[in-house]
Amino acid sequence: MTIILTGDRPTGPLHLGHYVGSLKNRVELQDTSTQYVMIADIQALTDHYEEPKKVKDHVIEVALDYLSIGIDPQKTTIFIQSLLPQLFELTTYYLNLVTWNRLKHNPTVKQEIVQKGYGESVPAGFMVYPVSQAADITAFKANCVPVGEDQLPMIEQTNEIVRRFNQVYKTDVLVECKALIPKTGRLPGTDGKAKMSKSLGNCIYLSDSPEVVAKKVKGMFTDPNHLRVEDPGQVEGNPVFTYLDAFDTDLEEMKAHYARGGLGDSTVKKRLTEALERFLIPVRARRAQYASDPAEVMRIIHKGTERARAAAAQTLSEVRQAMGLLYN
Amino acid sequence: MTIILTGDRPTGPLHLGHYVGSLKNRVELQDTSTQYVMIADIQALTDHYEEPKKVKDHVIEVALDYLSIGIDPQKTTIFIQSLLPQLFELTTYYLNLVTWNRLKHNPTVKQEIVQKGYGESVPAGFMVYPVSQAADITAFKANCVPVGEDQLPMIEQTNEIVRRFNQVYKTDVLVECKALIPKTGRLPGTDGKAKMSKSLGNCIYLSDSPEVVAKKVKGMFTDPNHLRVEDPGQVEGNPVFTYLDAFDTDLEEMKAHYARGGLGDSTVKKRLTEALERFLIPVRARRAQYASDPAEVMRIIHKGTERARAAAAQTLSEVRQAMGLLYN
Repeated sequence: MTIILTGDRPTGPLHLGHYVGSLKNRVELQDTSTQYVMIADIQALTDHYEEPKKVKDHVIEVALDYLSIGIDPQKTTIFIQSLLPQLFELTTYYLNLVTWNRLKHNPTVKQEIVQKGYGESVPAGFMVYPVSQAADITAFKANCVPVGEDQLPMIEQTNEIVRRFNQVYKTDVLVECKALIPKTGRLPGTDGKAKMSKSLGNCIYLSDSPEVVAKKVKGMFTDPNHLRVEDPGQVEGNPVFTYLDAFDTDLEEMKAHYARGGLGDSTVKKRLTEALERFLIPVRARRAQYASDPAEVMRIIHKGTERARAAAAQTLSEVRQAMGLLYN
Repeated sequence: MTIILTGDRPTGPLHLGHYVGSLKNRVELQDTSTQYVMIADIQALTDHYEEPKKVKDHVIEVALDYLSIGIDPQKTTIFIQSLLPQLFELTTYYLNLVTWNRLKHNPTVKQEIVQKGYGESVPAGFMVYPVSQAADITAFKANCVPVGEDQLPMIEQTNEIVRRFNQVYKTDVLVECKALIPKTGRLPGTDGKAKMSKSLGNCIYLSDSPEVVAKKVKGMFTDPNHLRVEDPGQVEGNPVFTYLDAFDTDLEEMKAHYARGGLGDSTVKKRLTEALERFLIPVRARRAQYASDPAEVMRIIHKGTERARAAAAQTLSEVRQAMGLLYN
């Protein structure tokens, strides 16, 4: 049986990049696997510790994003990370099985430290978050974790901990996991940059209104050499076409027309806006329905959290049993 | 009100050195303060992660040591660290408030790394244990922590976290603590080394039988220049007299006699054995009583653990409130 652990840091609204890169897969995977989707408030705090209130407020927004794109709480367990005390405890046990030196050389963390400009003042909580991730994954005995290529060292770190735990405590309680790298490519930002990022202001959000979507598409980066309608245009690497590939079909004729010249950017963008609206209209309808009843959304999250907690408690109990650390 | 947090790693039976250095104080302090005594299994795992079963088995032994020397479970809250999930969670929040660099430069930890020969392969759990200690102390809003001089950097680390938390989250929920350095000196090992240590085999345990105590005292290091009875002997730095100072009174005459010569080591040791027996007879009686009813001992520990858990839960709730991280 496939057990999936995935999730998002609640640090902002989710966008089309999230949809193409992961959310879409979750909607498909929920029919064929046991899927846990974690709203990772604790992980968000490792680099947003100064604004826990903001993290907390984004939790319900992220849940609304999930529900609006069709994650079905009957099929998928949506939960809040910080409400599972078992995850903190597992992290503590795993920290004894990882050397300080190993954490220091985690390639993903090293890169993030540079990106964030932490230098020597990197918070200890940030350095140990790969161990916290191992707790998240193993708590559900997840054997499948959808991640981007840049997150592969995290999966490797988790599996190292799994092997070490099972070896040290002579058990097979913990389960190794495989990375599931999404087939769909990444959606670039509206400015053509490699990916959508809140800080770059190049995102189309799942919660954007029709007017905002239309305006953002109008402002999108296209082929910078396609100055006049009659000029031949570049389809490959043109973000408008990358978006169309993700949200529309039967594009061959339009692509050929654009390539040979005679097709204006505004026409292509109009088609993209229509395609996005076809996708977003039901998304907005579901959002409106859930948003009108926030208590129901919290009920869904708490129910998922209870289910997740029961699974994590079962694993923790097996872990303590394997360690011989049960007190009666 | 004085609130005390103290405790021991359950890695072996407690000895006279523990009694003189800390246990004796606890018996006195329990009448005038709110005292929490933690059996620190989680902390023991940071350098004994390969033998959790041994750690667990020592928990009840340590509890028996406590009860036998007169720690009164009606006055003192005895609890097991790993059964308070709040401590794991507080540790996680505090890890975000401490830099990696700061942990690396903790003088106590640095020294222990050298002593244990860890080098680069020091477990991450060991590096972060000062943060876990800060969680232990602050969970009870302890304002007084009995420690040896060598543990002062731990108190400083805790207070740094307290100040940082209160500043970042604009609160006064967490409370700074003061170190309580015991007035009584350290008891040397029976071999004259600076302190009793299981690995050096120079301990007299609280659970030793009269025969074992007598034998260990007989074998004690004294003044190496006091070869014949008539030789003048050295009282200062002579472990037999240091022990007598801790467990007997009215020693002036005997010390003077030893110093001027004419008093044999065996006579002094006989007096020490008698003094230790006066102390140990009621200790053994209480131990025998409790040891005959292990279920009652576990009931005491679990009751204490429940009381400690309630206090820690209250603090954690205030901590989450201060962070704005409460989900309703």
